[in-house]
Amino acid sequence: MDLHGGNTYKLKREGRGEVLDYSSNINPLGVPKKFKQKAIENFDLLERYTDPDYVELRESIGKFNNMEIENIVVGNGATEVLFLYVKALKPRKAMVVAPAFAEYRRALEAIDCEIVYYPLLPNKKFLMDTDEFLKSIPDCDLVIICNPNNPTGSFIPLKEIAKVNRNLKERGIKLFIDEAFIEFMKDWREFSAVNLKDENIFVMRSMTKFFAIPGLRLGYGLTCNQEIIEKMKNYKEPWTVNTFADMAGKIILTDNEYIEATEKWIEEEKIWFYDKALKIAGLTPYRTNTNFMLMRVENKTASEVKEKMIERGILIRDASNFVGLDNHYIRIAIKTRDENKKVLNTLAEILK
Amino acid sequence: MDLHGGNTYKLKREGRGEVLDYSSNINPLGVPKKFKQKAIENFDLLERYTDPDYVELRESIGKFNNMEIENIVVGNGATEVLFLYVKALKPRKAMVVAPAFAEYRRALEAIDCEIVYYPLLPNKKFLMDTDEFLKSIPDCDLVIICNPNNPTGSFIPLKEIAKVNRNLKERGIKLFIDEAFIEFMKDWREFSAVNLKDENIFVMRSMTKFFAIPGLRLGYGLTCNQEIIEKMKNYKEPWTVNTFADMAGKIILTDNEYIEATEKWIEEEKIWFYDKALKIAGLTPYRTNTNFMLMRVENKTASEVKEKMIERGILIRDASNFVGLDNHYIRIAIKTRDENKKVLNTLAEILK
Repeated sequence: MDLHGGNTYKLKREGRGEVLDYSSNINPLGVPKKFKQKAIENFDLLERYTDPDYVELRESIGKFNNMEIENIVVGNGATEVLFLYVKALKPRKAMVVAPAFAEYRRALEAIDCEIVYYPLLPNKKFLMDTDEFLKSIPDCDLVIICNPNNPTGSFIPLKEIAKVNRNLKERGIKLFIDEAFIEFMKDWREFSAVNLKDENIFVMRSMTKFFAIPGLRLGYGLTCNQEIIEKMKNYKEPWTVNTFADMAGKIILTDNEYIEATEKWIEEEKIWFYDKALKIAGLTPYRTNTNFMLMRVENKTASEVKEKMIERGILIRDASNFVGLDNHYIRIAIKTRDENKKVLNTLAEILK
Repeated sequence: MDLHGGNTYKLKREGRGEVLDYSSNINPLGVPKKFKQKAIENFDLLERYTDPDYVELRESIGKFNNMEIENIVVGNGATEVLFLYVKALKPRKAMVVAPAFAEYRRALEAIDCEIVYYPLLPNKKFLMDTDEFLKSIPDCDLVIICNPNNPTGSFIPLKEIAKVNRNLKERGIKLFIDEAFIEFMKDWREFSAVNLKDENIFVMRSMTKFFAIPGLRLGYGLTCNQEIIEKMKNYKEPWTVNTFADMAGKIILTDNEYIEATEKWIEEEKIWFYDKALKIAGLTPYRTNTNFMLMRVENKTASEVKEKMIERGILIRDASNFVGLDNHYIRIAIKTRDENKKVLNTLAEILK
């Protein structure tokens, strides 16, 4: 599978050795210690099935988001939530704001939905012109927006999302917002589409990027639309969220020490990273609202740069297979200062 | 969700307190220690995505079953494998041998497949008459058999499965065999449908019952039919098998100490359990090939018995919602001798 970042296993099988992974966007603070301790102490809970209704887990998520438990659906990663939503809604035609996560396309194609893309453009720094966007939306059933956008890191303010939603709702078009990376934004709660509490909106979240547990698989969806939640339940396979993911979800959302340390780290690093990247000749970084950065490389292709980085033991994401990006885009995870220095110095060397 | 056994969480929420769970069929030897140790030592592997191709995991499963890696698909529990198979095959009409696991119906209904049932009958001890069965199969696309059967514990010998398959293949009907509980049979490798190496057959397995890790979610499918595997890949969401499940699968299949101890335990206990149950007035147990036993209660309904058992701190499975069973059937997990004594003594007391 080559759709995503992070396939260090394939490289190893190809005899390329171990590499440092900057292609998947995981919080470098690592697995939250409070969860780790509890899981080790209660390892034998694996001998029981998880609560199939995930009541306590959904209560935790509800508190974290100021939503009621019945507004919440959990999944084996955010991806399961996306696939369930699409199966339940059954759109015939959808517009996806690009560049975009490859799984939107896979989820929509699995139900034979026609897809059109609205491209955010590099010459506008991948920012959205709402009025122009609204004019471009065809007669369709669903609009999918990733906010903050992966891979560009750009963000659409809540006021604009509200405007988009009003327009879509009038036209009978649902709005799906992927907020998998929103927690990396300072004061993100003020900017989340959840605030609109509108049943036309479905918000998807991931718990594995911010809390550094991608191997555990945990995501959720938030919506005031009970009808779609009931339909999603009909398609849901039982126990898709494993016992440890369930346990993690009940612990980490109140782990304020971890959350604050992460917020402090990313606030500093994303600015440092941008400034440093800006000074590298042949490289155009884009400002990011989250924990990765899209960059354009001149004079070399993304695959050349990726290859040369692998030779130096570093895996980055060749972003050229995102719809709307050409073969000069790379995406790099922001990590600790030392790691960030290492990846940017290596990049500077290659682009020299 | 009330389709399955094991919902001790719901009872607790209803203020019924903690109960001992005999409704889900989990090996009482518990989480294999070798896996537990490795997982605790390598807990931080959760910070990485799992290999999306699950190469090493599929190699382990291949060795365990004497199959090639390309014949194997892994899933978040056997249920994911079932749902993927059904989505990929897209049968319009299917025959399911009943009584049967509720998820067959859910998987088939999700793709709008018509379902007909072939009932195994109590007056034939739930054993199949192959010739009669073959005559009953309508013009359809798929037959689903659970072998050993859940909840009856009855088993169809390989020779009969081969005969069924030959007939189905001639008629263009695929055969799906759920072997989720087969490892509890002595010398099961000789009896598995995998031996037929026929591309008309798809075999589903669970790794969480025998190895007591239901909370971890791990199942797989085996088939010589590459076409269906490729189609299943198209529907598969990425990383559905979590890092610990992946790790477990690479360790437990060669944990011969655990496997042999389990084989010894179940061989003894299933005989003891049947003999003991047979002596209880008002109870008709059915001989089982696996780690649970179906029983018929006279003079009381299954729900009455279940309720009275809960009052005594024990949860059993009311099996009356299995297609083909009436409201006098219960299913009980076979556990350690002490636990088995406890559940049967309590049952005898209630039925007195």
